[in-house]
Amino acid sequence: MLTKAKHVLPAARCLRNISSKNTNRMPSTYVTNTELGPSNLQTVPTHELFTKIGFISHPRSGLVNWLPLGLRISRKITAIINNRMEQIGAEELSLSQLSKSDLWQITGRWDNSELFKLKDTSDSEYCLVPTCEEEITQLVKEQLKSYKSLPLIYYQIKEKFRDEKRPRSGLLRGREFIMKDAYSFDLSETDAMSTYEKMIGAYKNIFTDLRLPYKQAEADTGDIGGTLSHEWHYVHESGEDTLFECSSCGSVSNVEKTLSFPQEPDEKAEVAVSYFKTKDNSTLICAYYPSNRTLEPSFLKDDIPDIDLGDRNEAAILEEFSDEETLISKRVVRIMDARLTSRSNFPDFSIPFVNRSLITTLTDVPIVTAQEGEICSKCEDGELKTSRAIEVGHTFYLGDKYSEPLKLSVDNPDSSGKMRSTKVMMGCYGIGISRIVAGIGELTRDESGFRWPVSIAPWHVTILEASASIQNAERLYDQLTENDIEYKFDDRSKVGIGRKIFHSNLVGIPLVVVIGKNFPMVEIEVRGLRYRDNADLQWRKAFQTKTFEWTVEEGTNGHDKKHFVHVDGAAQVIKSLLLDM
Amino acid sequence: MLTKAKHVLPAARCLRNISSKNTNRMPSTYVTNTELGPSNLQTVPTHELFTKIGFISHPRSGLVNWLPLGLRISRKITAIINNRMEQIGAEELSLSQLSKSDLWQITGRWDNSELFKLKDTSDSEYCLVPTCEEEITQLVKEQLKSYKSLPLIYYQIKEKFRDEKRPRSGLLRGREFIMKDAYSFDLSETDAMSTYEKMIGAYKNIFTDLRLPYKQAEADTGDIGGTLSHEWHYVHESGEDTLFECSSCGSVSNVEKTLSFPQEPDEKAEVAVSYFKTKDNSTLICAYYPSNRTLEPSFLKDDIPDIDLGDRNEAAILEEFSDEETLISKRVVRIMDARLTSRSNFPDFSIPFVNRSLITTLTDVPIVTAQEGEICSKCEDGELKTSRAIEVGHTFYLGDKYSEPLKLSVDNPDSSGKMRSTKVMMGCYGIGISRIVAGIGELTRDESGFRWPVSIAPWHVTILEASASIQNAERLYDQLTENDIEYKFDDRSKVGIGRKIFHSNLVGIPLVVVIGKNFPMVEIEVRGLRYRDNADLQWRKAFQTKTFEWTVEEGTNGHDKKHFVHVDGAAQVIKSLLLDM
Repeated sequence: MLTKAKHVLPAARCLRNISSKNTNRMPSTYVTNTELGPSNLQTVPTHELFTKIGFISHPRSGLVNWLPLGLRISRKITAIINNRMEQIGAEELSLSQLSKSDLWQITGRWDNSELFKLKDTSDSEYCLVPTCEEEITQLVKEQLKSYKSLPLIYYQIKEKFRDEKRPRSGLLRGREFIMKDAYSFDLSETDAMSTYEKMIGAYKNIFTDLRLPYKQAEADTGDIGGTLSHEWHYVHESGEDTLFECSSCGSVSNVEKTLSFPQEPDEKAEVAVSYFKTKDNSTLICAYYPSNRTLEPSFLKDDIPDIDLGDRNEAAILEEFSDEETLISKRVVRIMDARLTSRSNFPDFSIPFVNRSLITTLTDVPIVTAQEGEICSKCEDGELKTSRAIEVGHTFYLGDKYSEPLKLSVDNPDSSGKMRSTKVMMGCYGIGISRIVAGIGELTRDESGFRWPVSIAPWHVTILEASASIQNAERLYDQLTENDIEYKFDDRSKVGIGRKIFHSNLVGIPLVVVIGKNFPMVEIEVRGLRYRDNADLQWRKAFQTKTFEWTVEEGTNGHDKKHFVHVDGAAQVIKSLLLDM
Repeated sequence: MLTKAKHVLPAARCLRNISSKNTNRMPSTYVTNTELGPSNLQTVPTHELFTKIGFISHPRSGLVNWLPLGLRISRKITAIINNRMEQIGAEELSLSQLSKSDLWQITGRWDNSELFKLKDTSDSEYCLVPTCEEEITQLVKEQLKSYKSLPLIYYQIKEKFRDEKRPRSGLLRGREFIMKDAYSFDLSETDAMSTYEKMIGAYKNIFTDLRLPYKQAEADTGDIGGTLSHEWHYVHESGEDTLFECSSCGSVSNVEKTLSFPQEPDEKAEVAVSYFKTKDNSTLICAYYPSNRTLEPSFLKDDIPDIDLGDRNEAAILEEFSDEETLISKRVVRIMDARLTSRSNFPDFSIPFVNRSLITTLTDVPIVTAQEGEICSKCEDGELKTSRAIEVGHTFYLGDKYSEPLKLSVDNPDSSGKMRSTKVMMGCYGIGISRIVAGIGELTRDESGFRWPVSIAPWHVTILEASASIQNAERLYDQLTENDIEYKFDDRSKVGIGRKIFHSNLVGIPLVVVIGKNFPMVEIEVRGLRYRDNADLQWRKAFQTKTFEWTVEEGTNGHDKKHFVHVDGAAQVIKSLLLDM
């Protein structure tokens, strides 16, 4: 059968505008919950709003169905990320969500109790991937034929899985999540750092496209490993993370990376001590700190790079260093937290010791987690301010953490032109799409519902016809389509105009257009948040040179609340309004 | 931080053209296999070509990584499906890939040995979904508030999983596959049938967009259930399915649905007999058929709707009907296959029987699977022709198969206006994206590689600069971008022009443009298949009214092989060439 149909060129767009208002139906899951009203809305937690309005549903605790309304938002975030990834030359692929155990055993990550594991009929073990360092390293090992192919950046946007013990409602701590995970491959640490910087630039662009203020925080590398890492956060009181920001140098870091000095040392502090040793068993480390503070052992690493921070048994350590025969060949380092002074009330030294010259003492070192109001250790000037935050991204420089055990290397000419096997240096870069939806939802919601930025709103404008259908309004729909403005026409019968406006605001659509009895004048109600100063808004410029009837009703705060515009100028006004949202 | 960046409106397109040739890099997985050459290409099986060229890789048997090149193809198929689904009002969503056991136990599908099963930390059991009838029925049950929301069609495009015992290489029988699965919900069987027809229309449009000839075959409903079903196939000798097509009425069906009559009955046939009973145990069915043919028990259902086709023990059935005391209340139906006559050599009747008047005999009934050359039972005129085929889609009318056990109903006013609980009638509709990629790959490949239709080709045009970079060629790139023509610039150093053309043809890109020493004349080489008669091709019309230099070199078969075009007209010529591919 030879086909004769209309040719499909270019490929259809993923997010399309449909020209006729009649096919611009509301999603079937649009505000199915009839209990939501102005009176009870304020008390509904944000994560419940998502399910009550019909963005998502949870078929089981921690699992997520993305309904049409929520899927539209997640797809728009995806499109923003695709665009910014492509700009830095990252290539999209899609890895299997099943990963066999052997690679994970090599990297030592198989014994993670949060891996969902399963067996196939031949008893081979797999996990549902929570992240793909193992698989992508193996893939590049198979595909990489020449050093000339480097640098390489691959990314994918797919569901990941984690057997979270106590999944909570909502998108923040579920057992599945949509993540953009990117992986970079370079010939040297220098190249890899430059790729890391390029990715940081792409992240800044992505978050700028998403409009909401964000924080880039220095972070610990944790289980993923590597040596350099940043977290990307939305600041919100509901967040599970704590960030510290310096009032002077402005540096931001999470609690595991914030070193601080006290405003004043506390001479009367009760002193606690913890014992560590170096990996080579040569040195005992005694860490002294105020007993009402929390020791952060990783801070000791700056002074004792060889410190053993694994599982430790203090009694065994002290026992080892109490043997007077071997003690002579060993050393002791005493580290005093900066909050203590020499006049602090130190406990008795706990082991006998022959030669005091073998003891080194370091003072004024920050080894406990910071507190609000303390001094930034970076500039030694500003005060630290804490805030709660929602983590939505994490970037890691990995170095050879995965390329070493999985043996990813490539022949590369050295300075004399001779080919030498070179380890490939990696980075990995995550963004949680589900978390961004949850985070922006949390940040933008108010007593009327959500307020999505235009770049990710399910659609830009909801259109209501208050009077019986007005024939000439068709030209408005044509103009909206011409201007790439995504609209939905709310034609639900038996729902009043007030209720429809309430629902559009609840869902978080930036604008509502009401076509009513004053046609050809139409009314545009402003809902979307503005990311620019009131005086500097785009529509004000358009307003000054308007060529059609257009009046503005201001709210009590001096902000524009409603625009009354002749239908012929409506699309132009809408476009100018959307530009600042 | 208030952002100041360029505003993202409208959302970026998923498949974008990038304006500068320098960012139009080849995917990093572009023909990484250096062993592929004209001499050995013919012997490489199609499924190996996919991995050797770098469309996909198999991290494990049956698992699939979609590499950048393959992902582009699958995304274009996705875009075509999205477009056609949207046209019939289907809404996209995305269901969790984990589904808890309880719903499957209710529908009786949990004991499927091909389900990948896993437990969470609280020992609850889940499967990785191979299909989502259970979950979508449950979801609609939770979301559906009024009969006025019906009809509803939901669909999603996601990976599905099946613990295939013997996964084969390639995309056709793996342990994961990308499927578009759609589900429809209607108030009555009549409405559901009309939705089914609407979906059939969308499928025809999808396959027309995909360009390759396809077959819509009547099919058995199998494990999914329901009462009406069609399979969608690409005919190819490598296919695992067998289709029958009538030379007269043109009806197509698969082997489980093809009833046939013999050209001549075979009086000398050795006769076999199989025994069945009705579910109510009242009737013994004796099915007689030629012993060299295959009985298709489902064919008996047309005459004996109550027949029990489950597991059966013939000895037990005969035993039951040999008890002379109860026999008086029972009946016997003898069914003779159409290939037998009354003169055939029937075996002795196997049970004692008192009253021959209780025996009914049906003759001339087709009860064995058809063979090529037999007569179509539909028109009783044409001959059946068999072909091997690759199944790429399956549509089912489900009725209440899932809404009944999972109790999906809705209050609906009857003719008197009284509200009554009404069971929702369902349909389900699958298309295998992975299978379409494999199928079209198989159908289009030749001794030089793949030949993708323009609608799904990774890109439309490969561009080579044979001489040193020509400055004025930049206007060609601009024109291509203006015309939404997707191109990639092959700037690999140390790869000769001939090898580059070979690679572009191998990957299956419709056209290669060579910018060489004759610039501003450029050379366009034709690779893509034409889906229209040679005389009727679009470019011939453009050629007649050309306003720039343009000559054509024909191949031995009278087809255009190369076009030599002035650069100013190149984009126009390329566009006209692509229209028929």
